[in-house]
Amino acid sequence: MSGRGFDLACPAPLRHRTVQLAHGGGGRLSRDLVEQVFMPAFGGAALSSRHDGAVVEVPAGRIAMTTDGYVVKPLFFPGGDIGKLAVCGTINDLAMTGAAPRWLAVAFVLEEGLPMEDLVRVVHSMRDVARASGVEIVTGDTKVVDRGKGDGMFITTTGVGVVPAGIVIEPRRVRPGDAVLVSGDLGRHGMAVLSMREGLTLTGALESDCAPLDGLVSALLAAGVVPHCLRDPTRGGLAAALGEIAMDGGVDIEIDESAVPVSEAVAGACELFGLDPLYVACEGRLVAIVPAEQATRALEVMRAHAAAPAPARIGEVLGPPDASRRGRVTLRSRVGTSRLLDIPAGEQLPRIC
Amino acid sequence: MSGRGFDLACPAPLRHRTVQLAHGGGGRLSRDLVEQVFMPAFGGAALSSRHDGAVVEVPAGRIAMTTDGYVVKPLFFPGGDIGKLAVCGTINDLAMTGAAPRWLAVAFVLEEGLPMEDLVRVVHSMRDVARASGVEIVTGDTKVVDRGKGDGMFITTTGVGVVPAGIVIEPRRVRPGDAVLVSGDLGRHGMAVLSMREGLTLTGALESDCAPLDGLVSALLAAGVVPHCLRDPTRGGLAAALGEIAMDGGVDIEIDESAVPVSEAVAGACELFGLDPLYVACEGRLVAIVPAEQATRALEVMRAHAAAPAPARIGEVLGPPDASRRGRVTLRSRVGTSRLLDIPAGEQLPRIC
Repeated sequence: MSGRGFDLACPAPLRHRTVQLAHGGGGRLSRDLVEQVFMPAFGGAALSSRHDGAVVEVPAGRIAMTTDGYVVKPLFFPGGDIGKLAVCGTINDLAMTGAAPRWLAVAFVLEEGLPMEDLVRVVHSMRDVARASGVEIVTGDTKVVDRGKGDGMFITTTGVGVVPAGIVIEPRRVRPGDAVLVSGDLGRHGMAVLSMREGLTLTGALESDCAPLDGLVSALLAAGVVPHCLRDPTRGGLAAALGEIAMDGGVDIEIDESAVPVSEAVAGACELFGLDPLYVACEGRLVAIVPAEQATRALEVMRAHAAAPAPARIGEVLGPPDASRRGRVTLRSRVGTSRLLDIPAGEQLPRIC
Repeated sequence: MSGRGFDLACPAPLRHRTVQLAHGGGGRLSRDLVEQVFMPAFGGAALSSRHDGAVVEVPAGRIAMTTDGYVVKPLFFPGGDIGKLAVCGTINDLAMTGAAPRWLAVAFVLEEGLPMEDLVRVVHSMRDVARASGVEIVTGDTKVVDRGKGDGMFITTTGVGVVPAGIVIEPRRVRPGDAVLVSGDLGRHGMAVLSMREGLTLTGALESDCAPLDGLVSALLAAGVVPHCLRDPTRGGLAAALGEIAMDGGVDIEIDESAVPVSEAVAGACELFGLDPLYVACEGRLVAIVPAEQATRALEVMRAHAAAPAPARIGEVLGPPDASRRGRVTLRSRVGTSRLLDIPAGEQLPRIC
């Protein structure tokens, strides 16, 4: 927290130690918030044009666009906070289309009474992760709702990225025989947030994996790997990610349970809460479905990359693609039995992102 | 409400008459919501690729990007609802940069227990206004927060548009001598929402002006008008819009009070609530600051356009531009006196957008 242009310990320029309704009113207090909190953190050429929208230059071709609302509770958790999560999540959704993330828009819905210091901390962590990925926060908005009509802070981040020529990554490209890879151990984010919320103190081991994945994706593309589909297993975990790809791609997928990396800390916490780690959200892992002949190369690239701590080949796509297929994902267990890894009906962990 | 692909009277396919936490969980219920509510309403090529982000083609050049959170209360009001407001607001922010609005991303934060029928109504009104403006809703997200931690529905819409070559519209372009125009009578939206909230029944006259302004802006550009700045006077009304332009453009602005169009219904309601209509939000009006010699042509174009019901020249930019100027806006009253139209400190009407 560098405090550049803003002293965290003493946010005197804002005159208020908590967020007021007037900070969202479009008047002078809104302007103070922009001038004293957002501009020093995010300020760039586009933001400083001070207009209703930001104008940026794009090359001819394809852009990717994605949006996500963040309502995680609590706002701060081991390994991150709602701001880091929002920026990483949007960067990651863009990266999953193969796009290089470039510009972000950020909309806050704040609850009256939120400590100003919390907002500043969140804004600074958004700045830090955006900078590290070379992404510019170009426009934003703040609304304040009355006390009891929100829950501290909700953030919606929307990202725009530039898709390299020739790259098409989406469920419909998945083919029978493709290999299914993951970049690291699963379930950290969900279990870190849940443990914090439930007051569980596990000695240091349970940190969210929250991290940007754009560097890893561009390393894969640069190495000549042509992923048919990429997905970050967030809400619903690996099960939901694979279930959706299977359904949208019209294929079945088989996973080898013993090959799926799960840390001891996550496995232990899952046992405690009666959860299956394959259904628990990650925020810094990706599933890559690649042509079988590229699997080894893809794993090599991952092994050399800091954002892929435990790369593994966990399964394969069965075929042939067929509209009548039900998009089933099956899990071959350690003892050789097979069970359906169904897409979860609902929410085993509410508000983890 | 055409109900195409979805029967409003009987949302049986959703199995739930109210929004459940699981509808935001990323599992099967989330998927049902997408398949049965969002896809039939918004579905297009980009949305139907079913990926984390939408990929669209852009020409080389400049794009505009804007985001806004909507927390209006109540969700439905005379002349619109939160969905129409969100789509129009984002279209309008893009239009104010001179961009042709093209793609929208929509993120919902829903409160557990929201009637499903309300969500469907809102989605349909988003669809209707997006279609009418030729804007495509290409990607979205839904989160659900527990009962009592939200307020029915918040929507964040983010828009991307294409800026025509050579068009630069922003506060820094404003010049001394420029004419200040408005497209119609002010204050309708704020007073319509407030009157509804306060249970005031005024016979039919108080409808929100909520409407898209992209057509009006492109008509102005097509007629050769080169606006230096455009702004839709939303939160904080005309006073905030002009105050910001004056500050960011380093100029002073003088307004002739008797020239500012305000309807009798709005004037009456403002008197009742002790409000000044110049501070009350519009959602379908624009302020255009144009070179003085183009003012007549701009008013002609507005008069011929349905989105500009009461075009008026209301004032002028004083000069010269100077960093030391304080960005003052003064109001010359009907009786010849002059007062400062200060930018409001806060929020005279919370949650009107």
